[in-house]
Amino acid sequence: MTNQQLFIRKALKLALENVQTGKGGPFAALIVKGNNIIASGTSLVTSLNDPTAHAEIIAIREACKILGTFQLRGCEIYSSCEPCPMCLGAMYWARLAKIFIASIMQDAANAGFDDAFIYSEFSKKISERKMPMVLMPQNEALEVFKEWKKKGDKVKY
Amino acid sequence: MTNQQLFIRKALKLALENVQTGKGGPFAALIVKGNNIIASGTSLVTSLNDPTAHAEIIAIREACKILGTFQLRGCEIYSSCEPCPMCLGAMYWARLAKIFIASIMQDAANAGFDDAFIYSEFSKKISERKMPMVLMPQNEALEVFKEWKKKGDKVKY
Repeated sequence: MTNQQLFIRKALKLALENVQTGKGGPFAALIVKGNNIIASGTSLVTSLNDPTAHAEIIAIREACKILGTFQLRGCEIYSSCEPCPMCLGAMYWARLAKIFIASIMQDAANAGFDDAFIYSEFSKKISERKMPMVLMPQNEALEVFKEWKKKGDKVKY
Repeated sequence: MTNQQLFIRKALKLALENVQTGKGGPFAALIVKGNNIIASGTSLVTSLNDPTAHAEIIAIREACKILGTFQLRGCEIYSSCEPCPMCLGAMYWARLAKIFIASIMQDAANAGFDDAFIYSEFSKKISERKMPMVLMPQNEALEVFKEWKKKGDKVKY
């Protein structure tokens, strides 16, 4: 068995345990660097009262804490399922190198999860989405960005 | 001044302070229920070493902690800028009622942020994205979802 297969099966094992122990949904993820597992996470939305506590988000946060960095360049993520938009966005911000998945969003949708619905919302014009988004332009908004641009000692991300 | 204007200006004030104090990027968000601010957040990616610590994610997590829930139905979010894909996804998972913003993703892009790039990645086929995603189908993957479906006492989210 290759390391890749070991990692993806490990993620699935954690996902199964997460359901069986009642901690949360059927999802888990690992952050891997080279041949080493840096961190793992499972879905803890309902046990932590945190809608952002998806497996991938937890694994990314934990790996960053362990490595002392806010970017995971050179790391890969093994996830039991295709990431939802929130988690895919987090993977981009973390600058992960590659994503491995064991199932796809339709599998999650069939199990009652909103991933596919949320992706479909993203592909619509803002005015056609179920969640209304209202632009309230303010002069101060541009001032905030100006302040950022002129700041000499800022840490970019 | 309406409450909506007060809230959006409060978000901009927090965003400006976040830059000036060196805590992080030029973003802030408030969670509002009725006429009350439940929680706020600013971008703390670089000061917390956490790529998921965007203003909106922090505000959502904090509001859920305060309200003791993993969904924010009936709450609205006031954000200094249009949410990135990660944060928009989090807003859907939190079931927020409405989003108010003071600037748009092009403003963030002009200040050096990846929001627009990440949205453009979402609109591409998986095979054409910069971050490769590899499907490794496993029999265990479907077992995990079966376990979830048959679990009688699960908390759906």
